Amino acid sequence: MVPMKIGMLGSGRVGRTIASRLVELGHDVVVGARDPDSPRAAGWAAEHPAGRAGAFRDAASHGEVVVNATAGTASLAALAVAGSDSLAGKVLVDVANPLDFTRGSGRGPLAVTNDDSLAEQIQRAYPAVRVVKALNTVTADVMVRPELLPGPHTLFMAGDEPAAKQVVVGLLGELGWPAGDILDLGGIQAARGMEMYLPLWLSMMGALGTTIFNVHLVRS
Amino acid sequence: MVPMKIGMLGSGRVGRTIASRLVELGHDVVVGARDPDSPRAAGWAAEHPAGRAGAFRDAASHGEVVVNATAGTASLAALAVAGSDSLAGKVLVDVANPLDFTRGSGRGPLAVTNDDSLAEQIQRAYPAVRVVKALNTVTADVMVRPELLPGPHTLFMAGDEPAAKQVVVGLLGELGWPAGDILDLGGIQAARGMEMYLPLWLSMMGALGTTIFNVHLVRS
Repeated sequence: MVPMKIGMLGSGRVGRTIASRLVELGHDVVVGARDPDSPRAAGWAAEHPAGRAGAFRDAASHGEVVVNATAGTASLAALAVAGSDSLAGKVLVDVANPLDFTRGSGRGPLAVTNDDSLAEQIQRAYPAVRVVKALNTVTADVMVRPELLPGPHTLFMAGDEPAAKQVVVGLLGELGWPAGDILDLGGIQAARGMEMYLPLWLSMMGALGTTIFNVHLVRS
Repeated sequence: MVPMKIGMLGSGRVGRTIASRLVELGHDVVVGARDPDSPRAAGWAAEHPAGRAGAFRDAASHGEVVVNATAGTASLAALAVAGSDSLAGKVLVDVANPLDFTRGSGRGPLAVTNDDSLAEQIQRAYPAVRVVKALNTVTADVMVRPELLPGPHTLFMAGDEPAAKQVVVGLLGELGWPAGDILDLGGIQAARGMEMYLPLWLSMMGALGTTIFNVHLVRS
């Protein structure tokens, strides 16, 4: 395992969970927040001396790989603050879901859906960024510790650039995802299905009473 | 197993596949088509002497249980022809997906999605019908022969009436779905997630090069 510089956009539960695990694995992580002095960003840095907290731009500039773990409805604004110059040429792992919690039931419909997706919006807005959609179909604890669930289970991935997906497969492997459990769905347009899976995921969560679950692809 | 009168709305591949299996199991099935003299409806009846072909209204009137296997974008029109008097009080198993193949890529976005679903539209239009969404997340061959796939895999179900869901669980059991592999997601609103899963299913189909697959829910 080669230590990498990783920029985490977002200091919410998902961003902190992934960042903590990446630090534990030996990576050099900057967690970027809208307000780097916020208690949760500063608190994370205080608890993780090997990591740092900064602004969105600091995290994006730092990372060879950048992870978008902001709220999906705020991702484009966060990336604008991070700056296209900070992001150009980098692999961006988009783990966000564009759930609009201001509308409808607590299960929030999607703010973008059906003939577009957040990942595609990001790729269109930042053509020099190598966007890979991944990890958005499981809860943060399962993202970083797939062994929480028994037996094999499946992670979906989509992106236009094979080399960028290879980088992501490598990082996922360090988190505990065997390459054989990662299903490459093809180009970034396949992010539509990955994001539109969220309402089913939320219904499953409601039926099961837990977020610690995933699906395993079964084929003949 | 108690033989039931079942009305199949739709004589396409899905309707014929389910109808054939139900006849094989000993049920009394009428396949309803827009044009009952069409080669595929009449041909099905000729090949299945225990079954019959008829108009949508014939199938709906015949069935104690009615299955909606029409194209999702044509379902409301088909049900209108079948007639609310023919459908009232009956269990309607909605296996349709509202894929709009006239728009976008061959992977068709959904004609209704996000804050509504086909199953909810049907339930609203026919409040006296006991709508249960089921089977729409697998291909027709897997619907009727889940043993095509190794090991357990999961079928989702949603509907407002527990007694109607029990009827459906019984029929699914005859098709080979153990009750323990059927996940009841709750009320009919959960059909949103089941229908919005289709774009992911279509991407998986593209990546795998087969329709013979499903997902298995893995929990801790």
